[in-house]
Amino acid sequence: MNTSIVTGQQARLVSRNNKSHKAGTSGLAPGYLQANLIILPSRYANDFRNLCARNPVPCPLIAESATKGCDNAVISHIDKVRGDEILGEGCDIRRDAPHYMVYKDSKLEKSHCNDVVAEWTDDHVAFLIGCSYSFETALAAVGLPPRQLLLGRNVPMYRTTLRLCPSGVFQGGTYVVSMRPYKRRDVERVREITRRFGATHGEPLDWGWEAVERLGIRDIDGPEWGDAPMDVDGKRAFGETKKQKRSENKDDKDEEDEEEIPVFWGCGVTPQEAVMRAGLEGVVMAHAPGHMLVLDARDEDLAR
Amino acid sequence: MNTSIVTGQQARLVSRNNKSHKAGTSGLAPGYLQANLIILPSRYANDFRNLCARNPVPCPLIAESATKGCDNAVISHIDKVRGDEILGEGCDIRRDAPHYMVYKDSKLEKSHCNDVVAEWTDDHVAFLIGCSYSFETALAAVGLPPRQLLLGRNVPMYRTTLRLCPSGVFQGGTYVVSMRPYKRRDVERVREITRRFGATHGEPLDWGWEAVERLGIRDIDGPEWGDAPMDVDGKRAFGETKKQKRSENKDDKDEEDEEEIPVFWGCGVTPQEAVMRAGLEGVVMAHAPGHMLVLDARDEDLAR
Repeated sequence: MNTSIVTGQQARLVSRNNKSHKAGTSGLAPGYLQANLIILPSRYANDFRNLCARNPVPCPLIAESATKGCDNAVISHIDKVRGDEILGEGCDIRRDAPHYMVYKDSKLEKSHCNDVVAEWTDDHVAFLIGCSYSFETALAAVGLPPRQLLLGRNVPMYRTTLRLCPSGVFQGGTYVVSMRPYKRRDVERVREITRRFGATHGEPLDWGWEAVERLGIRDIDGPEWGDAPMDVDGKRAFGETKKQKRSENKDDKDEEDEEEIPVFWGCGVTPQEAVMRAGLEGVVMAHAPGHMLVLDARDEDLAR
Repeated sequence: MNTSIVTGQQARLVSRNNKSHKAGTSGLAPGYLQANLIILPSRYANDFRNLCARNPVPCPLIAESATKGCDNAVISHIDKVRGDEILGEGCDIRRDAPHYMVYKDSKLEKSHCNDVVAEWTDDHVAFLIGCSYSFETALAAVGLPPRQLLLGRNVPMYRTTLRLCPSGVFQGGTYVVSMRPYKRRDVERVREITRRFGATHGEPLDWGWEAVERLGIRDIDGPEWGDAPMDVDGKRAFGETKKQKRSENKDDKDEEDEEEIPVFWGCGVTPQEAVMRAGLEGVVMAHAPGHMLVLDARDEDLAR
């Protein structure tokens, strides 16, 4: 990690000059907000904005291009935060994420390219969606750091059967969730800490082993994105160990409180999945997974 | 119906003087917004506001008491609409709905009382939630009137298994949906018309016979609230006739387009159910079903 990068603007400038953060932007410019980026032809903008408004937990819309085709200024969707506080002067949405993905007529055309200058047109609209990095900092600060941070892994992310409220062309999508294991006795505190981050997924949407079934998650040890979850020692699979432990100790209240259970949050992969599923025509762009756009606003600016 | 009542204020004054609209407020003061009313002890206000923010389709929050204990002014949760445009000077939230329900420690204490003057304290906060009457007017205006209006019945409402995103004390709740039958070929038009009414449930959240299963609806002909749905002639049950017709005509595209299918919207009973399920302590109040608070804002003021 480059410790000389302390602001969002510095992180963006390094990305723009293609001295790229190969491992992604996790941990860069601590305390600054990072955003999922989705860039659509303008005819889909209303439906997408509405999709976010109807599903704010998995799709928290932070900002969008100030006008159609505008690549250097945004309007804010956050109360009491201005667009130029989110992305300040001199930003370039086409170049300031470390890596991008380009889709044409819903087929992947370029993977992990350095910029989208050639693909951007005056008909494109960029959307910035909140990311859970924000509340992870807050959890770590109170002694409840997410497991995957301690182990240097990516957060596991799962497809679910929980349906989004549809919006225009965006139909049939389902929630994607991220998972962090916590002890049962810590769940209320974890809920409380993350609740304030309403613009970046907020409090968990479900928790416990029953939630795995309710959400229709296929295999807790085989996430669709990110790294497989591990037990606290980083050696055993999370799911199997826990199920075994649970059946051994099911009558012991103290042991039950100590048991680790999966805790699920809405995930910013959700809108990307919804966009891919919609079969859009034309050129759609996004940041490459983990290679977020680092903003000028701080996590605390968005916490209610 | 009293045709001399043409404004929201007039409707409220009749309610206040207990010359009550016995059949409820449906059709009163056409074009004026009607609201579901939920009044909570202030310690639950943050969690409830957040519940609405996380689940805007079934729980569209329009406004709330201007301050704790305030019964005659609201602050708006709608962009570009002021609180005093929603409920103007002289309103009295304790008396201006035709009938109220009162719960103490989550048990029903009074049903259909004329006011809640005795129960209201300076610790209570009132919340106004959007109602689908708004978009029904718009549907009727383009020649797509909801079936139950034509038959003079109440809209059927169903409990579903689709879970709300939890918020603090409000956990484990599920969506309640309202249903209006439409021909398959009219669904896109119906979606388009209701989409603009984002502050009052917006476009449908699901449709078709498959949706009945996806939503975990027990019996399409036995709604949990409102009246059972009828076929177009008002004589046959909606569910059985349609299933039969479907199996007869399944290979005929034109017939398929003409087939009536159930179309589901988020329903304002959802937040009431969530409140009842939370087992709150103290005095909680609400309007009596169908006896809404009529506002000073017009449906069109809230359409995006």
